[in-house]
Amino acid sequence: MTQPTLTRSWVASANGHTDFPLQNLPLGVFSINGSAPRAGVAIGDSILDLHAAIDEFDGEARRAVEATAGGQLNAFFELGRGPRVALRERLLELLAEGSKLHTREAQVLHRAADCQMHVPARINDYTDFYVGIEHAQNVGKLFRPDNPLLPNYKYVPIGYHGRASTIRTSGTDVRRPKGQTLPAGQTEPTFGPCARLDYELELGIWIGQGNEMGDSIAIGDAADHIAGFCLLNDWSARDIQAWEYQPLGPFLSKSFITTISPWVVTAEALEPFRKAQPARPEGDPQPLSYLLDKRDQAAGALDIELEVLLTTATMREQNLPAHRLALSNSLHMYWTVAQLVAHHSVNGCQLQAGDLFGSGTLSGPQTGQFGSLLEMTEGGKIAVELPSGEVRKFLEDGDEIILRARCNREGFASIGFGECRGTVIAAR
Amino acid sequence: MTQPTLTRSWVASANGHTDFPLQNLPLGVFSINGSAPRAGVAIGDSILDLHAAIDEFDGEARRAVEATAGGQLNAFFELGRGPRVALRERLLELLAEGSKLHTREAQVLHRAADCQMHVPARINDYTDFYVGIEHAQNVGKLFRPDNPLLPNYKYVPIGYHGRASTIRTSGTDVRRPKGQTLPAGQTEPTFGPCARLDYELELGIWIGQGNEMGDSIAIGDAADHIAGFCLLNDWSARDIQAWEYQPLGPFLSKSFITTISPWVVTAEALEPFRKAQPARPEGDPQPLSYLLDKRDQAAGALDIELEVLLTTATMREQNLPAHRLALSNSLHMYWTVAQLVAHHSVNGCQLQAGDLFGSGTLSGPQTGQFGSLLEMTEGGKIAVELPSGEVRKFLEDGDEIILRARCNREGFASIGFGECRGTVIAAR
Repeated sequence: MTQPTLTRSWVASANGHTDFPLQNLPLGVFSINGSAPRAGVAIGDSILDLHAAIDEFDGEARRAVEATAGGQLNAFFELGRGPRVALRERLLELLAEGSKLHTREAQVLHRAADCQMHVPARINDYTDFYVGIEHAQNVGKLFRPDNPLLPNYKYVPIGYHGRASTIRTSGTDVRRPKGQTLPAGQTEPTFGPCARLDYELELGIWIGQGNEMGDSIAIGDAADHIAGFCLLNDWSARDIQAWEYQPLGPFLSKSFITTISPWVVTAEALEPFRKAQPARPEGDPQPLSYLLDKRDQAAGALDIELEVLLTTATMREQNLPAHRLALSNSLHMYWTVAQLVAHHSVNGCQLQAGDLFGSGTLSGPQTGQFGSLLEMTEGGKIAVELPSGEVRKFLEDGDEIILRARCNREGFASIGFGECRGTVIAAR
Repeated sequence: MTQPTLTRSWVASANGHTDFPLQNLPLGVFSINGSAPRAGVAIGDSILDLHAAIDEFDGEARRAVEATAGGQLNAFFELGRGPRVALRERLLELLAEGSKLHTREAQVLHRAADCQMHVPARINDYTDFYVGIEHAQNVGKLFRPDNPLLPNYKYVPIGYHGRASTIRTSGTDVRRPKGQTLPAGQTEPTFGPCARLDYELELGIWIGQGNEMGDSIAIGDAADHIAGFCLLNDWSARDIQAWEYQPLGPFLSKSFITTISPWVVTAEALEPFRKAQPARPEGDPQPLSYLLDKRDQAAGALDIELEVLLTTATMREQNLPAHRLALSNSLHMYWTVAQLVAHHSVNGCQLQAGDLFGSGTLSGPQTGQFGSLLEMTEGGKIAVELPSGEVRKFLEDGDEIILRARCNREGFASIGFGECRGTVIAAR
């Protein structure tokens, strides 16, 4: 457990309530006033410009900073754990109270509010998993009340290929998609704007070192291939999805946009928040051997509190605070992230630095824990009431969804992920 | 119709029986003896090195050649139709009999047999469609004899996202994948090498100019966004597929490798082989308006003869020729390539230069026209007999699959696509 709990930073905002205390140190890519995108580290309400401070690093840490050149973190991800840890150790010194770097504050630190964040890496391939078992059960119940989970669910970490070209960073508007839908009771589809627009609360997983095609990443090595984590909103057009998805899965119902939070929270920052994989209910099968590793079973799960909030245009006009739609946790993953990596590559599929995985929607089993409106409204049957007196079954134009994440543990500094925001705008 | 049918080339091999006569001029990326990959044009049994001949080009054609720098054709694809046509017109002059370029043959021409071909562009996203209606019906019949096509099939150009990282060029070995499969009559899966390895005969479509996220490409403009065509083998692990694909579609059963032929056959070369879209059978619905364009209906289909051949290790030892498994045609596409582009972007999904589409398996309705072993063997029930006395239900280690394509039309030079080859090697 390497968290320096008691160390304070000379960046004052990092010592109060913040997502980004000294113990977090997530990496991202930012620009100011239209400058070229470059790598930075979030600290309190500020961003450390890694390249402005590059002469403060040497050895492995210097190598890590150099690999972030060019405004994309792929080469840094590819370096793997060693240089990433060295960078973290040096950053802990540089940003701690008493560091001489404080005297260079004006050169190396920017106010985050002045910066524009970017997607932090070139995403080669994006895979969306479906390992939130409560979500799978909640959704399955809508279609198959007696048998919500398909027979493969507890053996196969279910996933599918997603669209990489439309992954955008927090704050990007979400244009309501158009498409084919089948009106209730009809046999012929119509074409028009999506009428059942939804969000999905997911954890994003950044892949670090990849593998050659034909090779597999063993479950025991899988954790070393993960560079970090973010939040991911898998926006979904439920009416388009229902009509298009048989037999090959979701396509245009998801590919119009996927939003991620811009900061890459490292495995090292999350180390204190690892837990044993929740015990499988009695009668659930053991994972097959290529998915089974003692260390992973003992500490492969992540205890991250996940939150969904909504504001509508009316709520913003009335200065009402964002309304919490859900509070959930990444412990609802049926498979660990190491199991996702081992499964994805077991057939010889090549993973590459900068690949992104989505976890699938991470709902809890109870009201108030559902990670999508599809679940909250039981497929559009029950309206959600908002503090403004409005109701929602699905998203309307002007609605903004905000995802947040936070890790808490007694005796450790609490860390957060920053936000993943998106506002729905009208169809073209 | 711009095909200069009667013009001969000073490259003698381009004038006999060849896939690459003067009328074809496909682009690709090659290297020799480990040199850096660079752009070339296939002509007979040779490759024209575009950059060695760059001083022969000016204006739009020069711009096209310059855009092929760096050994990837993405920037060239992005230029769109104008520069591509200018390049073709100039190449037709330069490679025609009597051109002065003949005197520079030693500098600008390489024997194709001496060259290594590469995947010609950085593939940002790969989408596999399912628009071979005979294949959909043949496969559907195995599962639903009375109702082989799902209700959406004749409205939605069905497709799904594929894995871009494992697309390889012709000649790359195909490592037999491992994975979970459910043995017949069992309720628990086992893990091991795929026992039902198959190929799929597809047309590949290279995207040229893209669109911004949130915009759509209108059906009338869609043809201008297509840079060219290739052959594509969508290798498939049928036993892994059957167990994993519900509810989100194929994943590890396809992502171990996809093989493409290396030459990009342009829309201009294929112009004489365009046809009216085959009439929909009586009772089939009209396409929705965003998929309907008169010009596309009149000339949006492609008449390309497609062939699958097999050799086994034993056949090669006995010097037996490759055995034809199927002869089919791209006219079995239920949707045109323009319809695929319009559909893919109708929700605002961003397409980018270098995206690749697969058509889906292009089978005919009859024996001898099936584009996969799944169809030929009726799901593994009927063995295929080979000239060596061997039989196959699915592919064995050492089997090589060869895809070929050819366009024939009275009064026009016949053109081909080159080969798409792959040999199965044993699982790790």
